[in-house]
Formats: sequence, C-alpha cells, structure tokens
Amino acid sequence: MANPRAAMLVIGDEILSGRTRDSNLHYLAQALTRAGIDLVEARVVADDHAAIVAAVRTLSAAVDHVFTSGGIGPTHDDITADAVAEAMGARIGHRADAMALLQAHYDRQGMEFNAARQRMARIPDGAALIDNPISVAPGFTIGNVHVMAGVPMIFEAMLASVLPGLTGGAPLLSQSLRVMRGEGEIATPFGELAARYPDLSMGSYPFNQNGAYGTNLVIRGTDPGRLAAAMQELSALVA
Amino acid sequence: MANPRAAMLVIGDEILSGRTRDSNLHYLAQALTRAGIDLVEARVVADDHAAIVAAVRTLSAAVDHVFTSGGIGPTHDDITADAVAEAMGARIGHRADAMALLQAHYDRQGMEFNAARQRMARIPDGAALIDNPISVAPGFTIGNVHVMAGVPMIFEAMLASVLPGLTGGAPLLSQSLRVMRGEGEIATPFGELAARYPDLSMGSYPFNQNGAYGTNLVIRGTDPGRLAAAMQELSALVA
Repeated sequence: MANPRAAMLVIGDEILSGRTRDSNLHYLAQALTRAGIDLVEARVVADDHAAIVAAVRTLSAAVDHVFTSGGIGPTHDDITADAVAEAMGARIGHRADAMALLQAHYDRQGMEFNAARQRMARIPDGAALIDNPISVAPGFTIGNVHVMAGVPMIFEAMLASVLPGLTGGAPLLSQSLRVMRGEGEIATPFGELAARYPDLSMGSYPFNQNGAYGTNLVIRGTDPGRLAAAMQELSALVA
Repeated sequence: MANPRAAMLVIGDEILSGRTRDSNLHYLAQALTRAGIDLVEARVVADDHAAIVAAVRTLSAAVDHVFTSGGIGPTHDDITADAVAEAMGARIGHRADAMALLQAHYDRQGMEFNAARQRMARIPDGAALIDNPISVAPGFTIGNVHVMAGVPMIFEAMLASVLPGLTGGAPLLSQSLRVMRGEGEIATPFGELAARYPDLSMGSYPFNQNGAYGTNLVIRGTDPGRLAAAMQELSALVA
C-alpha cells in the first residue's frame, strides 16, 4: 500500500521577508518520514487571506494531510483560522471550548483575557482542537487540514499530539502537569520516569510567568492505565 | 511604484524527506528584501517532472521573477533544466557554450567529461547562462525564471550575478581568477583590495582539487574600467 501523502503550508510575512528563518518544514519533513507519510510539497505564503484560502484549497484537494504553521496568535495579522474556515467551507466564531481553555489560562496567570487574546478562540465549526501544552491557545484539525502554531516549540508539541492519530494506530492520549519549577530542576527525575515507561512519550516545555520559571510536563500514550500510573508517579515526584 | 514581485521554487526530494535542510529560501528572502523585491510565495517540490513543470508555469505567470534552486547536477534525478524548458515552451539540448565551459573545466582538472557531466550542459534554447565561479556548471535565465544550483555556496554565488540585473541598474560584469592557494592564504591582501574598490563586489570561493586547496576569486561590478584595474592588481597580488 502506498504511503499517505502530505503537504505543508507555512504562513507568514516574516519568513518571506527573511526576518525569521523557518525551521518547522525541516522538523515536519523528518517527523513525517519517520511516520511513513510522504511529504510531497511545501508552500510558504504571506499573511494574505486570499493566498491562504487558495493554498489550503489546492493542497487539501491534492493530498491526504495538510499541515499549516503560523498565523494563529492574537494580533491583527493572525488570520489563518478564518482563512482555513473559508477554504474548508466552515463557519467560524469564538468557540466555547476554546474560550473556556483560554479564560482558565489567563485567570490562572492573573492576566486580562482581552479581545485580542479572544481571537485565539476563533475555531471553525466542526474542527477538533489540538492541545497546546505550552501557551494553551489551541490548534485545530478540520477535514484533512491540521492548523498549528508557528513558534517552533509549540508547533513541535502540537505535531506530537496530531501525528500518532494519522498513522492508523490507536488514538493518542495526553495529560499534562504544570509546575512552577525550572526545567533543569526536574529534568533528572523526569528522565528517570521516562526511562521506566518506554511505551509512553514524555516531554517538558518550559515557560516564564512574571519572571518565574515554570514547566509544563506532558505525557502521551495510547494505554489509559499506563498513562494514569505515570501521571501519579509524576505528581509524587514534583510534589 | 510597487516593488517587483518574486517567487522561489526549491526542487529536491532531499528537502521534503528531511535529509537536507534548505537554507536557500532564507538567504534569498533576505537578499530580495535588501534589493527591494517582494518575495510573495515559495514552494518546495520533489524531483518530479510534472510537479516542476506545473509549479514553474504557475509561478512564472503570477510574479515578475522566479528563482529556482536544485536539480541541475549530473545525476539522473537532476531534471530541472528539462522541466523548466518544457514549462517555458523552449527546446533543450547540450548547448555549445555550456559544453565548451565544462570541457575546459574538466580538461584543466584532468578529469573525464563523461555523459553524466555533459548533462550539466543541457540548457534551453534562448536562455542566458548564469556564471558559476565555484564548479563551473552554469545556471540559466529563461524568460523570468532564474535556474540556480541547490548547493548553498553555489546558489549564493549565482544569485550575486543575477540580482543586480533585476533591479534596473546597469548590467553586472564579473571576472574570476582561479588560484591554487587556500582561501586563508590570500584573504588579507584580497580584503585590502576590496577595501580600495568599494564600488566593486569581491568574493572568494574555496575548492579542493585532488587534495589540493584552491580558490576562485570573483570580482563583480558595473564599470568595465574599474573591473579591469582591480583584476590587474589582483593578478599581481597572487602571482
């Protein structure tokens, strides 16, 4: 049986102007090769509604999976979600599930969940959210299009959630624990835990909140029992 | 007046499989921004004749300048020249000017100019050659499509020849001198020469031939008199 075929769409003026160097294409290319999915084309377009709509339509019709990066933040030029919705013929608005995730996140941080930040809850009807263990604002999958963040660390974390579901394996489950300790402080015990659970995938994603270092620890796997056992050990480790 | 618009087409399975990380897009993006040309789209396609033809046709019709990288070497998967010729409706064959350049190069190196290497002389009718100061095999410009090598050092050297001619300035002239000395040995006097000719652009491109180090020294500029004067000084310097 032939491998599934995929395309990537990188969205962002900053790549085409040379201000930022894209690294997500190379990361995705390697990850797809390991997963047995053939990346057959990549495109980079500007933050331009018509250009994004046209590219999503063309690529979505041509291949089995389209991965996009960029343009899902809080600023006026983050127009990916609306463009993808139009390309896929879906309505879009501030979705309750995404609003709730973000509201809880900003409440926890003592920050205002203002109109700009609420933009990140614009999710097309019918799309499935993609977990963002780093900065909460979700990506989404609609049809065969997987919409992810441009920041490499977030793109990579989102891809880790999406990819296992595409290769015909059991659905991937994930749980995360947010701790207000630096990554380096917990790296050793976390690494030992990962070694005891080779069937699970464990990742740590550092952040800085008001000058204090914290880390999101994410455990992913397909067996709910194993996942629960590992999370219980992890909670005890960092208590 | 609006800036000219450009697109890039990166050609190569090795980019899409993740074996090689493309760096030419970022380099071109920065160079075009400096030159006042807007890069509005980039695409990466595989070493696939139909995919290259389709992308060249679409991009060539959509923008003022198309820059391609990759697929102009001696192996069976180097199919860019033939695909671009078809896309632009040109005939292609082993062109005499390119054959002569390459024949002289391999004669000088004492290497056989075999059938594989002769592939690199396949140039569409009506195309203008782009100088390759590093490994001689030329790129070419046909219509608004500039076909360049994928190896970053060669891509960058070819771009340095092409770019000044696109921005409405006087045509860029170049002369090169090949010396069998390492780059580091001549860097200081060459740098001093460059400082005395701020109106010219000077570059050095190291190579290794049968274990011996050599360097191609290239001087580019628009004033033939200044170019000749600098070349005369350079010849004396490295004699």
